[in-house]
Amino acid sequence: MNNQKLGTLLISCPDRQGLVAALAQVLSAHGVNIVDSIQHTDRGAEIFFQRIVFDLSEIATDRDTLGAAIEEVTTRFSMKYRLRFAGENRKKVALFVSKYDHCLYDLLLRHQMGELDCDIQMIVSNHDALAPVARQFNVPFSLLVKTKETKAQVEAQELALLAKNKVDLLVLARYMQILSDDFIRKFSGDIINIHHSFLPAFMGGRPHHRAHERGVKLIGATAHYATADLDEGPIIEQDVIRCSHRDEVSDLVRKGRDLEKIVLARAVRAHLDDRVLAYDNKTIVFE
Amino acid sequence: MNNQKLGTLLISCPDRQGLVAALAQVLSAHGVNIVDSIQHTDRGAEIFFQRIVFDLSEIATDRDTLGAAIEEVTTRFSMKYRLRFAGENRKKVALFVSKYDHCLYDLLLRHQMGELDCDIQMIVSNHDALAPVARQFNVPFSLLVKTKETKAQVEAQELALLAKNKVDLLVLARYMQILSDDFIRKFSGDIINIHHSFLPAFMGGRPHHRAHERGVKLIGATAHYATADLDEGPIIEQDVIRCSHRDEVSDLVRKGRDLEKIVLARAVRAHLDDRVLAYDNKTIVFE
Amino acid sequence: MNNQKLGTLLISCPDRQGLVAALAQVLSAHGVNIVDSIQHTDRGAEIFFQRIVFDLSEIATDRDTLGAAIEEVTTRFSMKYRLRFAGENRKKVALFVSKYDHCLYDLLLRHQMGELDCDIQMIVSNHDALAPVARQFNVPFSLLVKTKETKAQVEAQELALLAKNKVDLLVLARYMQILSDDFIRKFSGDIINIHHSFLPAFMGGRPHHRAHERGVKLIGATAHYATADLDEGPIIEQDVIRCSHRDEVSDLVRKGRDLEKIVLARAVRAHLDDRVLAYDNKTIVFE
Amino acid sequence: MNNQKLGTLLISCPDRQGLVAALAQVLSAHGVNIVDSIQHTDRGAEIFFQRIVFDLSEIATDRDTLGAAIEEVTTRFSMKYRLRFAGENRKKVALFVSKYDHCLYDLLLRHQMGELDCDIQMIVSNHDALAPVARQFNVPFSLLVKTKETKAQVEAQELALLAKNKVDLLVLARYMQILSDDFIRKFSGDIINIHHSFLPAFMGGRPHHRAHERGVKLIGATAHYATADLDEGPIIEQDVIRCSHRDEVSDLVRKGRDLEKIVLARAVRAHLDDRVLAYDNKTIVFE
Repeated sequence: MNNQKLGTLLISCPDRQGLVAALAQVLSAHGVNIVDSIQHTDRGAEIFFQRIVFDLSEIATDRDTLGAAIEEVTTRFSMKYRLRFAGENRKKVALFVSKYDHCLYDLLLRHQMGELDCDIQMIVSNHDALAPVARQFNVPFSLLVKTKETKAQVEAQELALLAKNKVDLLVLARYMQILSDDFIRKFSGDIINIHHSFLPAFMGGRPHHRAHERGVKLIGATAHYATADLDEGPIIEQDVIRCSHRDEVSDLVRKGRDLEKIVLARAVRAHLDDRVLAYDNKTIVFE
Repeated sequence: MNNQKLGTLLISCPDRQGLVAALAQVLSAHGVNIVDSIQHTDRGAEIFFQRIVFDLSEIATDRDTLGAAIEEVTTRFSMKYRLRFAGENRKKVALFVSKYDHCLYDLLLRHQMGELDCDIQMIVSNHDALAPVARQFNVPFSLLVKTKETKAQVEAQELALLAKNKVDLLVLARYMQILSDDFIRKFSGDIINIHHSFLPAFMGGRPHHRAHERGVKLIGATAHYATADLDEGPIIEQDVIRCSHRDEVSDLVRKGRDLEKIVLARAVRAHLDDRVLAYDNKTIVFE
Repeated sequence: MNNQKLGTLLISCPDRQGLVAALAQVLSAHGVNIVDSIQHTDRGAEIFFQRIVFDLSEIATDRDTLGAAIEEVTTRFSMKYRLRFAGENRKKVALFVSKYDHCLYDLLLRHQMGELDCDIQMIVSNHDALAPVARQFNVPFSLLVKTKETKAQVEAQELALLAKNKVDLLVLARYMQILSDDFIRKFSGDIINIHHSFLPAFMGGRPHHRAHERGVKLIGATAHYATADLDEGPIIEQDVIRCSHRDEVSDLVRKGRDLEKIVLARAVRAHLDDRVLAYDNKTIVFE
Repeated sequence: MNNQKLGTLLISCPDRQGLVAALAQVLSAHGVNIVDSIQHTDRGAEIFFQRIVFDLSEIATDRDTLGAAIEEVTTRFSMKYRLRFAGENRKKVALFVSKYDHCLYDLLLRHQMGELDCDIQMIVSNHDALAPVARQFNVPFSLLVKTKETKAQVEAQELALLAKNKVDLLVLARYMQILSDDFIRKFSGDIINIHHSFLPAFMGGRPHHRAHERGVKLIGATAHYATADLDEGPIIEQDVIRCSHRDEVSDLVRKGRDLEKIVLARAVRAHLDDRVLAYDNKTIVFE
């Protein structure tokens, strides 16, 4: 099967009877075969979620007609939806970094390998330390230094840059600056952050030092959507690695790097594949 | 929501367009709401698999009428299917054991705790060692000793016992006897076995000794459907645990017990929940 | 090798040059062979820790003489130490439980299997729910119900019971009462507790509910020494299991049971094997 | 503490009484403090293994005198040993690669990050595909193409190159050629290979395809010392990752990359830190 002939439809709406049938029917009516479908109902909140992957290779009409028909159904059922046809509307991504290079390298290498279905538009940093990495991978690099005084102004520049490049997703790949609430509210896309602890343990600064001091036997990393409340946005992915009394803080930092790379990459990949739905400060992540 | 009002439909059939819509429609037409649905298509083999959980609390007709309607659709599309209404047709299970008690205790305790939706009809053993455990949990215990000479005859007794009790699922919970091909062919239900290695590594006897000799850094356990080919049936669940040069064979045996219990319990639970579909010597396990 | 001929020496002291040589020499001088030794130095705190397992089968003197010689060395170097000869001084354990039976069953079964080198002296509970389990395993069961008014008095009874039975280790196997600071101070032995979260996340009550609400992707369990500060004692062992948006609180509780059993059992086993040294609100756990 | 003042001693010998004392004493006599020590005795094979890390900052003599004294003890007890002073004799490493770049990038980045205490002398390949990567990291790249006819001759060139550069460790970082027995015998250093399966499952070619066909629920990777018997050398490190019916072979390949990188890096790091001792086709890996 040609992956280029696939479409993805991601749905959420108040639960009611007949939703699945309605969507299945509209696709079937256009000669479109459902190759993968998964749904979830939050029984407490009475919300319905579904992700459908369908095959367009024998479509009886065309993409526009199908899109209009889907629009009609989703309106009827008050559905929020995202519809994407493979090969169209690749997501545009910006990476914000500081001095740590492990997450940056990891994302660039995965992109080069074809694991991340997106265009990496730019790397933005408050340091020039990683400019050579950007150059290695031919990604435009913007040095935008912020001080307490210039923060609002530089954030405005950043927002303009993101808007100009039509960035859909901003990945904070160990970016050591705190974005203002205002920035987060104004950015029209999504923001994914990686925090180097198993949230909600060790929110805030220096989590490895605090984990060492507390004597935990596992350290973690958490990828989440950034919201105005620092480290409290919806969690997309988490993982842990074993540590022991033998590990000094520098060992936790080293072990943490492997964890952060993998956890962030899984979260970004899930987001790019339209497998994540955020609601009620949580996420649905369809496998 | 009342779980007693749920039904489960498990489907497999040659892939073709319109399957999802047809099933969704028949349920919707009877006022039945789909609360959970997951599907998978094996693109190579062109086989379609789906598991649907639906809510009967506002059914517009009744279970028999719905059953007949589902029968009609599945026939039309040459679907193999299993339909089960919660509270009806609880699966009947037999446990075959020898001298090791850890898997037996684990399954009985999980059953007592309500984790396993089934009736445990009997425990069968070639030793009397575990009769007291059966007594503790009030499960009938049958001592059926086999020798080379009596094997065929005793297996016939076992089959009669299973048939009489309408056993759907036979769990080999560290049963140290090899069932004959004939037994496996004749038993009308399913058989789940636990093997104490990460199959296909260390098929056959004494896997912990061989793992120790090979110097592996992880040991495993595998739950699979028993087929005529020993240790080669469809794998349902596997897991591993770390070991090291410090572990002697007795340590591997000890660590293995925790693994075997959990892997077998997960496989049995998935089977009882109608989440497993076997085909082509593999399994689909819906989460 | 006969395990009954083994001795274990557990040491901690301020770090200084010559410690290892002094201990090795005293053992060697008595014809005692070191079969296993592991040491750790906390460079920051400048504390030295060592665990030595030695073989007494060719001892040139006798246990008392060896004991006296070890006493001499440890005094000279201001060492805290625990010395134990296999087969002597088995630790005496009390289990405190409430209504949940999974940890209790697990510990009793492991003990029956020979995994836990101790004598289980008694089970104490504030409910009679688990009396039948105690009976199954022939362990004395004491029902000691506490109310706000009687708490001090009942705790005094408990302490008397523990003292009378010379209990070295008290395991809180999902005991749903909070022990008073006074009790913890007065009990002369060690107390191990199991908390059903990945500490320090979700300290305090209802951790599974809070984990569900926060939308974490892993849940954990933590075994730690109980101290006056609730859930803040030295951590012995932790582990996690993956969860998802599909898991309701009841699923987390179910998954948590497997985790709690294993984490608590590992911690208790490490403690019984004299592999744990607590200091500075952390633990050294020698593998 | 200054890590540059550390020394490491790695020992193996027939077990006998007094070994630990003798080594501890010789170090103590030179004013050298043991900061870390771990030992293991294979009771079956009656072999003793020990790794000692010691602090030279207050040495009473000098490194040569200490070295001679250690030489004397090790000779007396027929010990095989490796002695290394931090900052001296960094291991020299060659990387053999083909077309896959993930392990190569991973090792180069870890080296750049300071995780691998060695000098990477060269990259050798039978393809020019990864020459640009070598260039990015300023490592000499040798293209040495082998055909069936030229294999012996090219291997001789490779051996000469390794000898000329005094290479101690050859890492086969997804090198897709089979080295001849002769090469392996003649190379004076160690060879670490990464195999993309959980050995001994799926030895030989196309392990991901075979894992997919068998329907396993976990895939693995194994780092081992290369010996004349392909995929049968002593295992240094292994790990696994969960997969499911949803994973096609290309997904296993993708998931396998993360695994291979981490497993190979851990094995190489353990080897470089003198934490690995191979014997009897197994390894001791001291943590």
